[in-house]
Amino acid sequence: MRVHAYAAPAAGQPLAPTTIERREVGANDVLIEIRYAGICHSDIHTVNGDWGPQPFPVVPGHEIVGVVAEVGSAVTRHAVGDRVGVGCMVNSCGECVNCTNGDEQYCLDGMVGTYAATDRDGTTTQGGYSTHVVVDADYVLSVPDGLDPAAAAPLLCAGITTYAPLRHWKAGPGTKVAVVGLGGLGHMAVKIAHALGAEVTVLSQSLKKQEDGLRLGADDYFATSDPATFDQLAGRFDLIVNTVSASIDVNAYLRLLAVDGTLVNVGAPAEPLPVHAMSLISGRRSFAGSMIGGIALTQEMLDFCAEHGLGAEVEVIAADQVNEAYERVLASDVRYRFVIDTGTIA
Amino acid sequence: MRVHAYAAPAAGQPLAPTTIERREVGANDVLIEIRYAGICHSDIHTVNGDWGPQPFPVVPGHEIVGVVAEVGSAVTRHAVGDRVGVGCMVNSCGECVNCTNGDEQYCLDGMVGTYAATDRDGTTTQGGYSTHVVVDADYVLSVPDGLDPAAAAPLLCAGITTYAPLRHWKAGPGTKVAVVGLGGLGHMAVKIAHALGAEVTVLSQSLKKQEDGLRLGADDYFATSDPATFDQLAGRFDLIVNTVSASIDVNAYLRLLAVDGTLVNVGAPAEPLPVHAMSLISGRRSFAGSMIGGIALTQEMLDFCAEHGLGAEVEVIAADQVNEAYERVLASDVRYRFVIDTGTIA
Repeated sequence: MRVHAYAAPAAGQPLAPTTIERREVGANDVLIEIRYAGICHSDIHTVNGDWGPQPFPVVPGHEIVGVVAEVGSAVTRHAVGDRVGVGCMVNSCGECVNCTNGDEQYCLDGMVGTYAATDRDGTTTQGGYSTHVVVDADYVLSVPDGLDPAAAAPLLCAGITTYAPLRHWKAGPGTKVAVVGLGGLGHMAVKIAHALGAEVTVLSQSLKKQEDGLRLGADDYFATSDPATFDQLAGRFDLIVNTVSASIDVNAYLRLLAVDGTLVNVGAPAEPLPVHAMSLISGRRSFAGSMIGGIALTQEMLDFCAEHGLGAEVEVIAADQVNEAYERVLASDVRYRFVIDTGTIA
Repeated sequence: MRVHAYAAPAAGQPLAPTTIERREVGANDVLIEIRYAGICHSDIHTVNGDWGPQPFPVVPGHEIVGVVAEVGSAVTRHAVGDRVGVGCMVNSCGECVNCTNGDEQYCLDGMVGTYAATDRDGTTTQGGYSTHVVVDADYVLSVPDGLDPAAAAPLLCAGITTYAPLRHWKAGPGTKVAVVGLGGLGHMAVKIAHALGAEVTVLSQSLKKQEDGLRLGADDYFATSDPATFDQLAGRFDLIVNTVSASIDVNAYLRLLAVDGTLVNVGAPAEPLPVHAMSLISGRRSFAGSMIGGIALTQEMLDFCAEHGLGAEVEVIAADQVNEAYERVLASDVRYRFVIDTGTIA
């Protein structure tokens, strides 16, 4: 079937309306009528060619919320009319040790990204800036009624990307968590860490968003542009979630960790980060990384967010504002996520 | 009291016989008649001035085994005639969160090293290349009868330095552990990981010591000079203990880790190590560090080694061979630890 979408025709070109082909609904597939699609910074990196050549035209979007319009004959998990979501992956081998452990994002055969990726049938995936998408039912999440659908869309990437390390490294009552950067990912990290019961500190370039940070659930807020911050907070945190993709002085942040603390990167700067082994050795500290989360954990995250009334802070836009929105994301001029009302795509 | 010792008179100078002052035996002190003192690579770094200015003359040695000759009035833990050991630290504040958690090596007030350090009373500590030492009883370990005393000496540094990360990151049945480097630390890591029940692989520059490695308990042995090693072992290990203090290509080793695997450095290269965040993110991997171990864990390690019949492979030397031994350590010409028979010091 042919569906409407917004696509980047080539690297660095503005997105424009087009139509794309979606596959027939197979036995295990779900056809989703998309309602909202979040704009993630990685959409922009991809279409700008920052991450290498892409199979243009590319329809970005991996923060998708919609309603089930049709299900394949073998689908039992979802039904027509259900509110559902799709995140950063739409397939994996399902058989390797990581898939069977619920870590499909680390599939040894390679997870299939929601857009600009080669699916297991050899076709190229196209994302959520579109009216419809067909996805294997095993990679479709249930979006609980309690969640506002526009605010839920960013949970599928920004939510799970921060929820996964917070859960893995056991943020909760009695733990001190710092969040580096208060953007799309950072603001969700603050909300989730607070809801998990941790003591939350935001480490941001400046104090510009301090009021927001405290409102979102932070207990403390410090400017990293002030060198005194690094003296004052030395040895304080059990976990630091770094949501900033630009290079940071890793050693300075490692010194903010208590014994057994972990600094976990959820973004990947282009350049390698110089790490002094002594920064790790002197406190049995770890520098770690985490990438989105498995399907079961993503469902857990959505249920957790519904239970705690958590959604992203969003600015809903029409599809024809997407290029302007990209400019504003690059200028950090969004609090905290743009979400496309995909009903405006035609 | 004045006791005999071997000291480096100045940076880079050969060690020579001398006498030093040991403090009066205080209420909580133990006077130890030293029998054996291991030679650790860090002794050489220290006296060569590689780690900055030192309070010369320096008596090195933090792998000490001896017999209790006298105890202070308040000492209950040790008695005259007991076989005891002293490792890398002889004091700490005893009150901070790390000390009270049994991690005295991460004392917030700074642990006191066994030599070339300033003790809490302001005096300079002097190490185990000596006939006697006076140490606070809380930092004196019991050396079980089952252990050969010369082979036990290196356990106090090389043993605990490798035992601590193996235990912390849960090496045991069903886990795959790699040990980078088969030297003083590495050979103990192999023995201990094997005794803990892990599957053990040695990653060494060449296959020169392969026979030794397998004899010591390794299941596999690979040469890191062969690039095929890094393809063949990709994603294999749960834990890699890097005992090599020279710079390694951290990203190449991180790729050998399975999901949730940890690469832990127990040595600190002088230069920072460039880490690609993607090496961590792509498998929720960690790059960590670990420094010796707390007193309770050191005792656990000695008991474990006695139970499993583990000691270091040692070459016992007379004190007047120490400078020659240093040359041989620097040339990697020792299998696997020199231990000074301190009865030869006079």
